[in-house]
Amino acid sequence: MSEPAHQRAHPRTPGTLFLVPTPLDFGLRGSAPAPESRATQWLPHDTLSVAAGLSHWISENAKSTRAFLKRVAAEIPLAKPLQEQHIAELPRLAHKKGDHASAAGLDVQARALLAPALEGHDMGLVSEAGMPAVADPGSSVVRAAHTLGVPVRPLVGPVSLMLALAASGLNGQQFAFAGYVPQDSDERARRLRELESLSMKTGQTQILIETPYRNATLLQALLQHLQPQTRLAVCLGLGLGQQVTRSETVRQWRARSEPLSGLPLDLPAIFLFGSS
Amino acid sequence: MSEPAHQRAHPRTPGTLFLVPTPLDFGLRGSAPAPESRATQWLPHDTLSVAAGLSHWISENAKSTRAFLKRVAAEIPLAKPLQEQHIAELPRLAHKKGDHASAAGLDVQARALLAPALEGHDMGLVSEAGMPAVADPGSSVVRAAHTLGVPVRPLVGPVSLMLALAASGLNGQQFAFAGYVPQDSDERARRLRELESLSMKTGQTQILIETPYRNATLLQALLQHLQPQTRLAVCLGLGLGQQVTRSETVRQWRARSEPLSGLPLDLPAIFLFGSS
Repeated sequence: MSEPAHQRAHPRTPGTLFLVPTPLDFGLRGSAPAPESRATQWLPHDTLSVAAGLSHWISENAKSTRAFLKRVAAEIPLAKPLQEQHIAELPRLAHKKGDHASAAGLDVQARALLAPALEGHDMGLVSEAGMPAVADPGSSVVRAAHTLGVPVRPLVGPVSLMLALAASGLNGQQFAFAGYVPQDSDERARRLRELESLSMKTGQTQILIETPYRNATLLQALLQHLQPQTRLAVCLGLGLGQQVTRSETVRQWRARSEPLSGLPLDLPAIFLFGSS
Repeated sequence: MSEPAHQRAHPRTPGTLFLVPTPLDFGLRGSAPAPESRATQWLPHDTLSVAAGLSHWISENAKSTRAFLKRVAAEIPLAKPLQEQHIAELPRLAHKKGDHASAAGLDVQARALLAPALEGHDMGLVSEAGMPAVADPGSSVVRAAHTLGVPVRPLVGPVSLMLALAASGLNGQQFAFAGYVPQDSDERARRLRELESLSMKTGQTQILIETPYRNATLLQALLQHLQPQTRLAVCLGLGLGQQVTRSETVRQWRARSEPLSGLPLDLPAIFLFGSS
């Protein structure tokens, strides 16, 4: 029996790929986080401590990874100074939102990114905000790690989808994250009705996201197309000072004279609905 | 226009319902956490700090909530001593696994539990392990809070389903949590094939849980009934010392001489599969 090629080429014990969550106020509207915002607000000590010990990173954006490391350094000294940190960016193609299929074609590039792990270095995978490889394109790197025999270890931190699910009061025992819905209004209406009928049949909560400038459009479409007895929740600015969660039946939403008023719809939003 | 009854009866500003995550090693096999295990391993400072300030709780089990508060107190002094903490238990019925519909019938009891919030006290909702109202029955309390006008605020902490999803390398841009599958082997086979065909059609990752003593049975059923090209991942003992994640195609799993050997299948497990 011959060994897989990567084992022949890299005889030493591989490092671990740590999945390192980042604060949710990260890169928000391109602005820096509030000066009083500390990484300890979002991340347990163990996550900060592992992050401070790493010096090889894979990220969507090297600039925001350096900003993240500065916030880590404010709590725990980094093992290597910022200018000695190696930060490799995920290939651009993998950034396309909701497009997991094309990301699968990137497995070859993902393997190349893991070369330091095969040489024995521990590495960190980070996303722009929250948990890497959840609602973002990082999973090709994680798949490549499994293929190459690089151990994968997820670290605890914020997952906005689950904060929203818990806060919604909707069914947390059956749920689905559907990502983005179509922008064409007819297709969107069809998709929302399809998801709602799934939910009525199975009790499954449906979770959606949208880019902030389309939040109001999506919320209006949800109010227009869902059944009156369906519960609709929107979580805005999760974990930020202005955080708001509203969870009511569509009937109750519609009974408001101005259903959208009072909601900070310019903030990152998560939309949830279901039959409960 | 008349005000809702609860506003007449409780004229003061309600407290906030905080959703307080707990460590994942909690209540594991009925044993106490390892002595070296600290709450800061799992929870950010802000979560610990809010928890330490509360004295009204809603939980599945008062005993484990007191154990949690002892771990919080080891990091940050509690605003009120343990013996002055008010801990109300969720009605037993709501504990039935995966049964969200019957939990909906408990909305009346859930409202009663929120009486302290209506009197102005901040409250904490905790689950046995991880994020309350995700994969556990706490959502009836959250729904009741929204109905009563009690603000809901989720706090950051571990969500085992998302740690597993990230670690699996499966599609994190479309996924569903299906809870438990049927115990009858024919029904289970049918359900697994149904979930797999959904996944092949949509790219959606399927996430399942099982009680530890049935982990091996479920894993065998997955290996038997899924297609060879489907990727199957199992995460065991998430966040614990012994943590293991294995993610391979079913073909690769089957090619092992003893596919289940070397896996600590007595630990809490999360199973994931999908077409990527």
